Amino acid sequence: MTVQDQAEVVPASPTIATIADEVGVSVTTVSKVLNGRADVAPDTRARVEASLERHSYRRRTRRAAESTGRIDLVFHEYDSAWSMEIIQGVEAVTAPAGLDMVLSQLGGRHHPPQQWLDALLARRPLGVLFVLCSPTQAQQHQLRRQGISFVVVDTDSATTASVPTVGSNNWNGGLLATRHLLELGHRRIAIISGPEDVLCARTRLSGFRFAHEEGDIPVDPTFVRHGSFYVGAGYEQGMALLDRPDRPTAIFASSDMQALGVLRAARRLGLDVPGDVSIIGYDNLPVTAWTDPALTTVNQPLRDMAGTAARMVLDLARGDDLSLSRVDLVTTLVVRESTAPPRH
Amino acid sequence: MTVQDQAEVVPASPTIATIADEVGVSVTTVSKVLNGRADVAPDTRARVEASLERHSYRRRTRRAAESTGRIDLVFHEYDSAWSMEIIQGVEAVTAPAGLDMVLSQLGGRHHPPQQWLDALLARRPLGVLFVLCSPTQAQQHQLRRQGISFVVVDTDSATTASVPTVGSNNWNGGLLATRHLLELGHRRIAIISGPEDVLCARTRLSGFRFAHEEGDIPVDPTFVRHGSFYVGAGYEQGMALLDRPDRPTAIFASSDMQALGVLRAARRLGLDVPGDVSIIGYDNLPVTAWTDPALTTVNQPLRDMAGTAARMVLDLARGDDLSLSRVDLVTTLVVRESTAPPRH
Repeated sequence: MTVQDQAEVVPASPTIATIADEVGVSVTTVSKVLNGRADVAPDTRARVEASLERHSYRRRTRRAAESTGRIDLVFHEYDSAWSMEIIQGVEAVTAPAGLDMVLSQLGGRHHPPQQWLDALLARRPLGVLFVLCSPTQAQQHQLRRQGISFVVVDTDSATTASVPTVGSNNWNGGLLATRHLLELGHRRIAIISGPEDVLCARTRLSGFRFAHEEGDIPVDPTFVRHGSFYVGAGYEQGMALLDRPDRPTAIFASSDMQALGVLRAARRLGLDVPGDVSIIGYDNLPVTAWTDPALTTVNQPLRDMAGTAARMVLDLARGDDLSLSRVDLVTTLVVRESTAPPRH
Repeated sequence: MTVQDQAEVVPASPTIATIADEVGVSVTTVSKVLNGRADVAPDTRARVEASLERHSYRRRTRRAAESTGRIDLVFHEYDSAWSMEIIQGVEAVTAPAGLDMVLSQLGGRHHPPQQWLDALLARRPLGVLFVLCSPTQAQQHQLRRQGISFVVVDTDSATTASVPTVGSNNWNGGLLATRHLLELGHRRIAIISGPEDVLCARTRLSGFRFAHEEGDIPVDPTFVRHGSFYVGAGYEQGMALLDRPDRPTAIFASSDMQALGVLRAARRLGLDVPGDVSIIGYDNLPVTAWTDPALTTVNQPLRDMAGTAARMVLDLARGDDLSLSRVDLVTTLVVRESTAPPRH
């Protein structure tokens, strides 16, 4: 609490006193809310927040003097090789800048619990990188009022326009993967999409459908499946798709981990990849060059995305305007061994 | 710098003044050295350090009031899935305790550069976890003088007796893997060990040799290879071993990543696994359950190792004595699909 107690609060227009008067609480209470302190009754806190909001109150702080020289990197949840790519992309920016990288995860939540945010506010990071998760509207206001910059690294680019975001072109990724299979001669192509409520998955599916429309090739509705991005879902959906007489000749998985599960399902059923079925993944994790067969996949430049986001956080912390506040990096196709023309 | 300037330095026996007198510098200079400040001439710093050392000076600090509620987790270098297991093991302890986890890596170095340590000292973590790296003797003294606890997570347990260490039983791991292959009937077994200067690799090799001695079975010296723990080395050594007429019927790789490389080499040479050659890995990373074939491997309980080390750091930070300061967790064999009796 030492650092924050010393924080110099330069009266803005309106002043903290104005807020305190309006809500009918002490200046100290308003200050506590601003500092993310826990010792304020929830009801009081809500009323102070609302008043700060109405007045568009912004704290004027001297960031350089105050901040603790740290960047927080927050994951929706850890996902092995995928998360490690992000971590390495962020570190490539924070380490040379002499900044600490503080790691945490939300255990699968898409928004941080308020308790997590309060702890963060009290610790005064230079900025926060949210990966596959984002602050709620109210939390965005809290972060802005404290002068803490934040950027969302998302594969869906679905957050509101006011939030700086780095993503990748998912639609293009879906298009590239499907075109590749169509060009090889496949006409019975299945897709294992991500969870139905995840926009990046739906965007890739949209690219998949567009590629079919381009070629005037119908999509078999039973060939469109959904599942989590993990290996188990790929195995399950792969078994369901491949263990039927009218099985697809190619499967587009929405993550490399899913694709590993499909590979395993094919092997279990005695099917050769790519002889009997072509498989294509998504992400281009390092391990895909070493699977058996090596995986054709869509390269999502995770390290570059993370690095770009980290640089944006630093720019914002310096008070610079971002030249671009919503960036989608380009996805590309990496052709390896798991795709081939269909047998006839 | 704010937090450290306020740090209360309770005079110990000897006092800072004693040290200052002896070296012939001001009390402020001694204090700066203790605080890991950069603005002290290297020569002066060395003399102060030496004097502190001679007097076994220990700072008496009030850790709870002073520390920044963070644990530093430092890797030799990041290694994708392997590092992620460690991260998750540490977080399982630090998150419930409300501590920040600060991540960094030494870019392949086995000891931190002094500059890194100085920055760390200035930031006052509760403790530090070193993974596959360790502080030098001098750095250990610096950490102890500042009251910063540290534990080494190592797979070799080779650090000096004074350093609390969590490892795993590598010798037993090497023994279990080799016994498994011998029991299946293999007599021509190769090992791809880690780098020759890494003790954990040599320890596993020693277990490999012991299992052969037990059964009175000679080890072909050309079957003992060395390489890094990464996929590429496994592929290279796997090719060298398998592309010869008198090839081994089984290969024990010292990491799962190496084993993936061997799998790929076998495939390239048209060899069936486990029909033509059995392959066994080490670590039991999550992905090994999904490779094709699923990998028989030695389970190294990385999450438990990391969690145990994190709890040790917290115990030390509280001033508790450790009941055990050097812990080796048990390795076990996980039999999956990549091992079978040799064909004859």
